[in-house]
Parts: sequence; C-alpha cells; structure tokens
Amino acid sequence: MGVVLLPDLGTEIIVPACAVIGIVFSLIQWYIVSQVKLSPDSGLGNNSKNGIAESLIEEKEGLNDHSVVAKCAEIQNAISEGATSFLYTEYQYVGIFMVAFAVLIFLFLGSVEGFSTSSQECTYDKTRRCKPALATAIFSTVSFLLGAVTSLASGFLGMKIATYANARTTLEARKGVGKAFIVAFRSGAVMGFLLAANGLLVLYIAILLFKLYYGDDWEGLFEAITGYGLGGSSMALFGRVGGGIYTKAADVGADLVGKVERNIPEDDPRNPAVIADNVGDNVGDIAGMGSDLFGSYAESSCAALVVASISSFGINHEFTAMLYPLLVSSVGILVCLITTLFATDFFEIKAVKEIEPALKKQLIISTAIMTVGVAIVTWVALPPSFTIFDFGSQKEVRNWQLFLCVAVGLWAGLIIGLVTEYYTSNAYSPVQDVADSCKTGAATNVIFGLALGYKSVIIPIFAIALSIFVSFSFAAMYGIAVAALGMLSTIATGLAIDAYGPISDNAGGIAEMAGMSHRIRERTDALDAAGNTTAAIGKGFAIGSAALVSLALFGAFVSRASISTVDVLTPKVFIGLLVGAMLPYWFSATTMKSVGSVALKMVEGVRRQFNTIPGLMEGTAKPDYANCVKISTDASIKEMIPPGALVMLTPLIVGTLFGVETLSGVLAGSLVSGVQIAISASNTGGAWDNAKKYIEAGSSEHARQLGPKGSDAHKAAVIGDTIGDPLKDASGPSLNILIKLMAVESLVFAPFFATHGGLLFKIF
Amino acid sequence: MGVVLLPDLGTEIIVPACAVIGIVFSLIQWYIVSQVKLSPDSGLGNNSKNGIAESLIEEKEGLNDHSVVAKCAEIQNAISEGATSFLYTEYQYVGIFMVAFAVLIFLFLGSVEGFSTSSQECTYDKTRRCKPALATAIFSTVSFLLGAVTSLASGFLGMKIATYANARTTLEARKGVGKAFIVAFRSGAVMGFLLAANGLLVLYIAILLFKLYYGDDWEGLFEAITGYGLGGSSMALFGRVGGGIYTKAADVGADLVGKVERNIPEDDPRNPAVIADNVGDNVGDIAGMGSDLFGSYAESSCAALVVASISSFGINHEFTAMLYPLLVSSVGILVCLITTLFATDFFEIKAVKEIEPALKKQLIISTAIMTVGVAIVTWVALPPSFTIFDFGSQKEVRNWQLFLCVAVGLWAGLIIGLVTEYYTSNAYSPVQDVADSCKTGAATNVIFGLALGYKSVIIPIFAIALSIFVSFSFAAMYGIAVAALGMLSTIATGLAIDAYGPISDNAGGIAEMAGMSHRIRERTDALDAAGNTTAAIGKGFAIGSAALVSLALFGAFVSRASISTVDVLTPKVFIGLLVGAMLPYWFSATTMKSVGSVALKMVEGVRRQFNTIPGLMEGTAKPDYANCVKISTDASIKEMIPPGALVMLTPLIVGTLFGVETLSGVLAGSLVSGVQIAISASNTGGAWDNAKKYIEAGSSEHARQLGPKGSDAHKAAVIGDTIGDPLKDASGPSLNILIKLMAVESLVFAPFFATHGGLLFKIF
Repeated sequence: MGVVLLPDLGTEIIVPACAVIGIVFSLIQWYIVSQVKLSPDSGLGNNSKNGIAESLIEEKEGLNDHSVVAKCAEIQNAISEGATSFLYTEYQYVGIFMVAFAVLIFLFLGSVEGFSTSSQECTYDKTRRCKPALATAIFSTVSFLLGAVTSLASGFLGMKIATYANARTTLEARKGVGKAFIVAFRSGAVMGFLLAANGLLVLYIAILLFKLYYGDDWEGLFEAITGYGLGGSSMALFGRVGGGIYTKAADVGADLVGKVERNIPEDDPRNPAVIADNVGDNVGDIAGMGSDLFGSYAESSCAALVVASISSFGINHEFTAMLYPLLVSSVGILVCLITTLFATDFFEIKAVKEIEPALKKQLIISTAIMTVGVAIVTWVALPPSFTIFDFGSQKEVRNWQLFLCVAVGLWAGLIIGLVTEYYTSNAYSPVQDVADSCKTGAATNVIFGLALGYKSVIIPIFAIALSIFVSFSFAAMYGIAVAALGMLSTIATGLAIDAYGPISDNAGGIAEMAGMSHRIRERTDALDAAGNTTAAIGKGFAIGSAALVSLALFGAFVSRASISTVDVLTPKVFIGLLVGAMLPYWFSATTMKSVGSVALKMVEGVRRQFNTIPGLMEGTAKPDYANCVKISTDASIKEMIPPGALVMLTPLIVGTLFGVETLSGVLAGSLVSGVQIAISASNTGGAWDNAKKYIEAGSSEHARQLGPKGSDAHKAAVIGDTIGDPLKDASGPSLNILIKLMAVESLVFAPFFATHGGLLFKIF
Repeated sequence: MGVVLLPDLGTEIIVPACAVIGIVFSLIQWYIVSQVKLSPDSGLGNNSKNGIAESLIEEKEGLNDHSVVAKCAEIQNAISEGATSFLYTEYQYVGIFMVAFAVLIFLFLGSVEGFSTSSQECTYDKTRRCKPALATAIFSTVSFLLGAVTSLASGFLGMKIATYANARTTLEARKGVGKAFIVAFRSGAVMGFLLAANGLLVLYIAILLFKLYYGDDWEGLFEAITGYGLGGSSMALFGRVGGGIYTKAADVGADLVGKVERNIPEDDPRNPAVIADNVGDNVGDIAGMGSDLFGSYAESSCAALVVASISSFGINHEFTAMLYPLLVSSVGILVCLITTLFATDFFEIKAVKEIEPALKKQLIISTAIMTVGVAIVTWVALPPSFTIFDFGSQKEVRNWQLFLCVAVGLWAGLIIGLVTEYYTSNAYSPVQDVADSCKTGAATNVIFGLALGYKSVIIPIFAIALSIFVSFSFAAMYGIAVAALGMLSTIATGLAIDAYGPISDNAGGIAEMAGMSHRIRERTDALDAAGNTTAAIGKGFAIGSAALVSLALFGAFVSRASISTVDVLTPKVFIGLLVGAMLPYWFSATTMKSVGSVALKMVEGVRRQFNTIPGLMEGTAKPDYANCVKISTDASIKEMIPPGALVMLTPLIVGTLFGVETLSGVLAGSLVSGVQIAISASNTGGAWDNAKKYIEAGSSEHARQLGPKGSDAHKAAVIGDTIGDPLKDASGPSLNILIKLMAVESLVFAPFFATHGGLLFKIF
C-alpha cells in the first residue's frame, strides 16, 4: 500500500473539467463546420443560423452556381427529416421496451431479498452490513434508464451532426479534396468528442448522486451503477440492429433495382430509394455506432468500478484510485483533442492518396500520446502497490503492472486498426486480389472475399489474446477491464474517423443527386473509399473492445454469482459453451434474413414506382422518396424485435432455468465465437465494397484492366458489395453488442440468479 | 458390480463374426452391381469379369444402342484412371508425411522417460507397475501406421467401388429411375459395409495382438491403441482437404468456363475439365468421406476403450464389458444389413418423388432397430452396475444409464439428419425461399443462403448439447464416447446413403457426356438432387459425431495430462479458448483460398484449350482431359499442405510451448466454434445446390416461374451453387477432422506434454 499523489479534490476537478473541455472543443468544431454556408441567403439550410458574412464558397470555378447549393440544401433536408422520423419511430418502440425492462429489473432484483427494506450482509465482506437488495433494485433501475437515455441521446446527436455535415462536405468538395476532407473529419470529431465527454460526465454525476445515498457502501453503489452499462448497451442493440437493417435494406433495395435492373448509377436522383439509402447511413452507421461505442465505454467503466469497489480501493475508501478508470478516460479526451489538431490544423490534405495515411496517422498519434498520458495518470492516481479482487481472494498488484494492462489494450487496439486497414483498404494486395478474382465472376469474388474475412481474424485474435493474457495475469479481471478502457481511451478519435465514413458516403450521394460534375463525384468517392476502411477500423475497435469488456463483465458476473471456477469439464458449463457459440449464428441468421426481406419489400416498392410513375426514368417526374423511407422504417422496426428478443431473453432464460454455471458457459461461448464472426463479417464486407471502388476508380493499370464501370468484372464486384452490406453493417457489428449485452445483463441480474436461478436443475 | 451375461468367448466370436458378415454382405452387393454389364462383349469395362450371360440391359427402348454402352465404359475408364492417379500421387505425399510423423511420435513419446526400457509406475493406479513409456512409444507408432493404412485403404476401396458403379447407374437409368436408384444405393452399401466391417476387424485384431505383449496392462494397451485413431484421422485430413480442393477446384473451374463463359451445359463432353470434375466427386466426396467417418469411428472406439481401461472394467479385467464399444459397432453392422434390405429388396422406388423418402426411411429404420440392438447389447454385455473414471475419481453407473447414453447419441444423429434434410432438400420451404430470392439476383441468393446455413445450426446444436448433457451427467466422458459410438453405430447405412450422392452425380455426368437422351439426364438429376441432400445429411452425421468424439477425446486427454479442471477463468485457458475458436476460420480461409487459386489455374487451362484446339466448341475435336486432371492433381496436392500443417502442428506447438491448460482451451474453443461453421457451411452449400436443381427441374408452378435453365434467376442460382462448392465440400467437412484430429493428437502426445510441455511458462 502507499500514498496517492493526486488528492481527491484534484480528481473531483479533473474529471468534470476534461469532460467540459471535450464538449467545448466539439462545439468549436461544429461552429467551424457551420461556416460552410448551405445557401447564400442563409435561409434554406435547416441549421445555418451561425451566419458569418464572408462566404467561403465564392472561390474557384463552379462555385457560384447557387442552384446547386439550394439543391444540396433540399436533399440534406430530406435526409435529415427521414433520419429524424426513423429515430422517433424507433424510440417510441424502444421507449416501451425500456420501461418494461426497467420494471423487470426492479422486480427481479427486488425479489432477491423479498423486497425487504432492512440492510443485509455484504456479498464479499461478510463482516459488514450493506444497503438492502431493494436499494440495488431501485438504483439499478434508475441507472439503467439513465444509460438508456444517454445512449439514445448520443445516437440522436450523432445523426443530427452527420446530416448537418453531409451537404457541407459536398459543397467543399468543389474546392478540392482537402477542404472536403476537413469538413467531414471535423464533423466526425464533433460527434466523437460530444459522445466521449457526455458519457463521462453523466457517469461521473450519477456516481456523485448515488453516493449521497450509498455513502461508503462502494460495493452497493457500483453494483447499482452497472445498470448504466446495461441501459447503454440495450439501446445500442436496437440502434445497431434496427438501424443496420434499415440502412442495408435500403442500400440493397436501391442497388438491386437501380444499378442492376435499371442500369442507373448509384445515388441517381431518379431512384426512389436513394433518400432512404442515405438516411440509412445516418441512422445505422452513425447513430448505431455512436450508441454501440458509448455502451462499450460505459460497460468497461462499470466493470472496472465494480471490481475496484471490492478491491483495496473500495475497502480503504481511496476515492482517486477507485476513479482511475474515469481519470484514464478524462486524459483520453485531452489526448484526442491534440490528435485531432494534427488532422485539421497541423497538416493539410492535398491529394487523394494522402487521405488514408492521414486517418491512419490519427490512430498512431493518439495511441502514442495516450501511452504517455496513461503512464502519468497511473503514476499520480494509483498507490505503488494495492490489492485487486481475484475470484474470491485478493491479489497484489503494482502500479506499473496496471499501466501495462492499460497500455496493452491501447496498443492491441492500434494493431487491430492497422490489420483491419490492411485487409480492407484497396491500397494493399488483399483487396486487390479480391478485385482481381472478379475477372472470373461473382462466385470467385465471393469465395475470395469470404476467405479474406476469415483470414483477417488471425492477427486481431492474437492481439486480443495477448492483451487478455497480460492484463489477466497482472490484475485479474480488473486488468481486463482497464485494458478495454485503454482500447477505448482514444474513443473520441476512433469515433471521429469512424463517423467520417458515412458523412463522406452521404456527401457523395448528395453530389450525385444534385447533379454535380463528375470530378466532384470522384473526390467524394475517394473520401468514401477511405471511409469504408475507417468504418471497418471502427468496427475492429468496437469488437476488440467488446471482447475485452465482456470478459471483464463476465469475470465480475462470476464473482457476483459466487462461482469460483467455470470448469469446461462439467456438463452444465460445456453445453452452455456449445450453445453460446451457436447464438451469434442464430442472431446473424435472423438479422441477415431480415435485411433480405426488408430489401425485397423495398425492391417491390421501387419497382412499382418505376412502373407507375410516368417520366421517372427520363427524369421528368420526381419519385416519391418518402414512401421508400416509410417502407424501410416500418419494416426494419418490425424486424429488429426477434434478434433483440433473442439477445435480451437468453441470459434471463438460461440464468433462471439452468443457473449460473450454464450461463457462464453461454457467455464464454458467445464471446469466443462471436468475436470471430464479427471481425470476419465486417472485414469481408469492407473489402468487397473497396474492391468495387478499386475497379471504379481505375487508378492503376491493374484496376483499369478490370474496369470500367459496367464491365463484367465490375458487375461481379457489385454483387459482392451487395452481399457484404448486411454482413458489415447489420449482422457483424451487432454481434459486439450481443456479447457485451448478454454479459452486462447477466451481471445486473447476478444477485437474482445466484438466489433463485437454476430452477430446472432444482426441480429434477 | 455384477455378472455379465455374455461370456468372453461369446465376445471373441461375435465381434469378428459380425465384421465378416459385413464384408460378405458387401461382396454380395458388389456382385449384384456387377451384373449390370458395361459391354455386350464383356471386354470394354475395366471391371466386368464376373460376367453372367443374361444381359439386363436388353429391355425397353434405347437399350440396344451398343455405342452408348461403349461410350459409358470409356468415360468410366477415364474417370477411374484419373481418380486412381490422383490417389496414388496423394498417397506418395502422405506416405512421406506418415513416416515422418511416425518417427515424431516415437521420439516424443519415447523421450517421456528418456527411452528407458524399465517398467514404470502406472499413471492412474500408482500402486501398480505398467509397461515402460518406450513400449507406449513403439506401439503407438505401430497403431498409428495401422490406422493410417486402414484409412487410406478405406478411401481407395470406396473410390474404386464408386467409379465401378457410376456408369452402371447411368445405364440402369435407361430402364427407369427405380433401377438406377438401386444400383447407386447398392454401390453405396458396398462401401458402407466394407468400411465399417474393415475398421472393426482391424481394430479388434490389433487389440488381440497388442494384448500378447501388454497382458493385463489395459491402461497401456489402450493408450497405445489411440494411435490407431490418430492415424485414421490424419490420413482423413489429407484425404478430405486434398480431395476437397481437387473436386471443388475442378467443379468451379469447369463451371466458370463452361456454363458461364461458353454457355454449354454442365458435364458437356466438349468441356476439357469435365473428367476432372467427375474424378473430383470420387476422390473428394467418396474417398475423403470414407476416411473421415472411418476416423471418427476409430477415434470414438479408442476414446471409449481408454476410459474403460481405467474404469472398473479395466481394473477388474472384464473383457466383454471393456469391449462393449466394439460390440455396439458389431450389432450396428447387423442392423444396417437389415435396414439396407428395406431399400433394395422390401420396397421398390417407382417415381422420382419417392427417392428422398426412401433414403430418409433408411435413417429412421436403422435408428429404430438399432435402439433395440443397443438395449440387448447393454443388457448382455454390461454388469448391472459398474464404476467409470471421472476426472480423478470413480463414478458409479448403471447399465440402463449407459444404454441411454448410446441411445441419446443415436437419436441425436437422427435429429441432425432430419433437420439437415429439411434445410437442404428442395421439397421444403427453406430451399424454395432461397430459390425464390434468385429472382432479385445473385446477391440476395447469397444472403439468404448464408442466413439459411446459420439458422440450420440451431436445432443440431441443441441436439448435440442435449446428448452431451445426458451422457456426460450419467457416465462422464465414457458416456460421451459411447454417445458418439451410438451416433456412428449405423455408419454403414450412413455411408451408403452418403456415397449414393456422388455416384449419382457421376452417373449424370456420364449420361451427359455419352450424349444420352434428355429423359435419362432428368432421371439422374433427380437422383443427384436427393444425393445433395444425403450428402448434407452425411456431413451432418460426420460433424455431430465429430463433436462428441472430440469431446470424449478431450476428456481422455485431460485425464491423461492429469489436469483436474479446465477453468475458463484462468488466463492460460481463456486465451486458448479464444485462439482455438479462431482456428476453424484460419483453416477455412486457407482451404477456400486454395480452392479459388486452383480453380483459377483450371480456368486458364480450360480457356487455353478452347482457344487453341480448333473445332472444340463445334464438337469435332476432342479436348485434352488428362491435362485438366493433371492441373487439378498437382495444384491440390500442393495446396493441401498449409491447412494440413496448421492442424497437425497446432497441438504440438501449443502443448510444447504453452502446456496442457492452454491446449485444453484450444481444443474446447475449436470444438465449439468449428461445429457451427462446419454445419452452416455444408448446409448453405447443399441448399444452394438444390435451389439451382429446383429451378432446373421446374417441377412446381413456383419453380417454373423462376426457370427455365438460362433465365436470370437460374444464373443467380448457378453463382450460389459455385460459391457453395468450396464451403460444402472443402472447408466445411474438413473442419470435423480439424477438431477430432487436434483432440486425438493431444491425447496421443499427452504423456509428453504432461512431462515436458509448457516450455514458455517454465522459462518466464
């Protein structure tokens, strides 16, 4: 044991201060983006109130075409309205779920001690008295609702920012690829910083408020706080699944009729599904991803805090040391702030080929600086030596060991990011090989693409395994939790480069719809190709951190459920493991089938419009965009229920009927199996998308041989791209949430399962 | 404890007698098949020595066309020669591997006690002396070689029978679908019974011979016998992988140029790759499958015997009870014999739609009769009560409990078979939905097909989980091993209906190449469509039994390596679990990429022939079939090495460097993850193949809307079929072997790992 250099008052100042700095920085970025005017008279755009007289768009050729600006503003409006209406509809449904599940949490947890209001023996320290189970029930319910609302707000804000930025990126593309890049990236940063800071602040305030009741009962406080993670992740599930089905059904539906049947280009304004397609990018990739990473962040913090509360930090009431996870996140915001400046202010993008390296540099710089940041935080906020709860016993840990735990997570994240880039960027041979295989048709393209995805899991899995081994060996599940936090500490940068992708995608769509020149479309396509890669990188981070987070939650669950070993060589555990490993397949089958069915509905809707609206193909009549938005909205909301129910009900059913051992097996099985499918699905999809873009761009001798657009090889590439859509944007990334959510749900319900679980075995 | 009704002498008679009956029955079937003459003058066919004067082919229209018969004989000859030459080449390579690995086994196991020749303390019963480790090394090596040679012989014989039967099936198809069915099915039965009986006989003789040295040291004897399983499975690996790459590369290559580029039908004699394609069916699906199921059978017997030897059977020297696994298999042969008569003699197929139900009935009948058979064997061969080794302790088991263990495996196999049929037969809605999705193109076909495969794992996994739970709870890993044996007890029937598929496929190919009428081709297509389903069912059995077998082997390994728990909550085990779950992806990536590359080579070769041989497209010149056979042979042999090495080296590297805990994790991880991919891959592929056949056959209103051949929907279906080829015939079914082989290899090397393993952790 020893003294902590940072006084508690320092912690109380640093954490909220960093959060506020993050929010202010994000507002500044928003302000800068808003300087790109969507109309000369500041009246058409839906968000152009911060007008400054000097108009940036009065430069270079073609910039004075006011009709284009007006058209962009109009399209943006339509996209924004569609996205908002989808999210409102979605939120109505999840709102009902949220309330129902909150009641369920209260009843399950309240029933543990029969709704008694008297204090009870503590779970870990039997000599002390803790707050009653009823308090846990109430506060868990409250923190669940808090997490859920914060998650919804994160997704909604992200969507708003993205739909604000898309048309502005298009307009800036007229000035050059560098200008457009900056706008898209700044907008991504707005979302990244807002979410990271917001998540931190709400969690911190919740802890302070809960402390008013719990006082020194850290164990009870943080047990209740885990509801925050559950709330965040359950909303993320619906966001990801609903949004994912929406976006991919619209995309697939638009492509099948437009590109394949009618032979009109992507994002052509004559295609009735084109607005729905662009809406999809915002509700799926932006809002869904925002909720997802927020959930991971909330859960890894909660997992670390729960373990800290039953370790020497909690036992000795070391406030600063206990809030170490929040301090790491706080410093992360500052580090990301500096990193962002490298992309926006210190350097300038001048050519297409500089885009990807610039984004890659963001990853490397943030990781390098953050390593120093973590070292400092560890040095000032932790005593040189302390003990960590390790499945029933206390394990001595030194502060440099904990630094290594965080650092190994951080660098594993970087490795995953770089490997993902290698497998999904068209600058390297894997994607080029896939593109090459299009020569012999769609079948070889699909075979090579699937093989690429399978292969791309190898190094990430070794990286995750290494971080698990190091952090687990040093500091048991606390180590795992802080390794996950390490991976997520640069979340602001990760989200920024991730959100950049759909914004660029939308910008390209708007350019096409507004009838802008071929050169501008080429620029937005280049931004978008880099965006596909960064989207895959973002998913890599999401799944890597999800693996660590769920392991940490799993560890916390096992401790809370008072199991000392999870022995594979017992039938209860093994069948759990086997069935758990099956769940990601079940889940993927449901979501993929959903994408397929909704896409078929969309196809029918689009075909009907082409057949019934005279002059649509000739461009003389306007399609009914709103109808397609409605088809996608209604169908995807309906389809998100079965996969959502599968994930939410499995832990409850298994825990109640089969008990905690089988549930442990299910969690471990779904974790080790889900990680693989998630990584391979998102990389396969990313690679197919970029193989298509590689052929379209024709920027090398090899690519020109395969192209141009409309060649047989290109047609094969389009088929691959379409197949990849549900894999990379619906089923794949939802799997992160599956594994995290089942773990955090088990943890929240652990007191109930430990008391009343395993009914089936009790009966027989 | 109690007395066993069956005297040891009875066992000594029954086991070899049943094996001999099986062999005789298979020879009778062979004789009946040989009655179909391949030439009127008994001189053209390569195997028509058993001539009987009455020529069955002198009936009905078109039967007198002797030129067709001659042509069929000629094609059969070419296929048989191609297959033989491939297997010879393959065996040269695996022969080298076999010798090298035999040396390795000897050195590793011999080094356990430093090649000492003095007797040692027994592993489980420390009070007794057992034979030296050097003896284990020598006998393990011998049994490894024995298993390997038996496996190779099984594959080779299967191939010979299949290439003997294919043209005969074609000729019989002229008389009607029923006659053709019987020939194909009888030939499958030849293979099924020969393999099952042969595997049993060799194992039984090996036990008797080894016993001459080991005497009453059962523990040592059966430890050495596990080498038999290792030998069988390692050859199966190369057979499956090499044959799988061969068959699918040839198939994909032939289709890509023939069907897609040149627009000529499947199996058109103008296609230079057509013989290679038909050779592939025989070396991949027949020889590979034969070796695979033989391996499963050998391993489950070995796993059960090892556990029996350290249970009360071994301790009390109860010979009959110890050989219970062999008795179950012996009775299985008799049961399958009766079952076969239901298909060949008791009923007759008269219409196309009766084929699938007839095959399904085989499964149901054999399962039902076998349940009675198992009950009798259990009653006469086991004492009413006995103890079974259960990870360090002895667990009391009653004979009816053991009956339930076998029965649950048997019935789980049936359930897996029926579910597989449901998902892959075009008589049910899943395949019809996939066919329907072809309306909107190849992309939706692929999405729906992948989703179907994912969904099809759900019930089989629950069936496997239930059998594991029941058998594990009743009799620990002995229960699991006999459950696997239960599933495999009807192996003769399973192999018969499985081998039926590629024989029918070949028959169709020969009909097309010999220029036979459209009607005959329709008949063989109907046989083949049922064959796709039975092939998927066979793969379902293979993977289901592989899951149980590897769990049993895993249990035996853990016992032998003296680990008492495999706790997921230790970093060593967890990283093993995670990396193990990744291995099937790595392996699949390698094999799929291999299929892709070899197919590309084939495409180039075929294209070159079309471009350089004048008159080839017009049918006036003959293609160079042998060249394509050579391309496939050379490339697939080269490509089978990396995936083979991955599987064979992983347990050695992990065990030596990381030790037995991590290796346990790897085994459990690859088991629970590999099962899912294997099932989904083989069902997805089967469904795509049959969706294509559904459209082609056009036997319903719905199917006719989608067709005919050459329609857009049909083209989309062909793409799906091509993608499915490597999934269902190369990567998917090889995964069974991956999980079994790693487990049996770990078991064989367990003495070495327990003594010298975990170097890395010993150093740090």
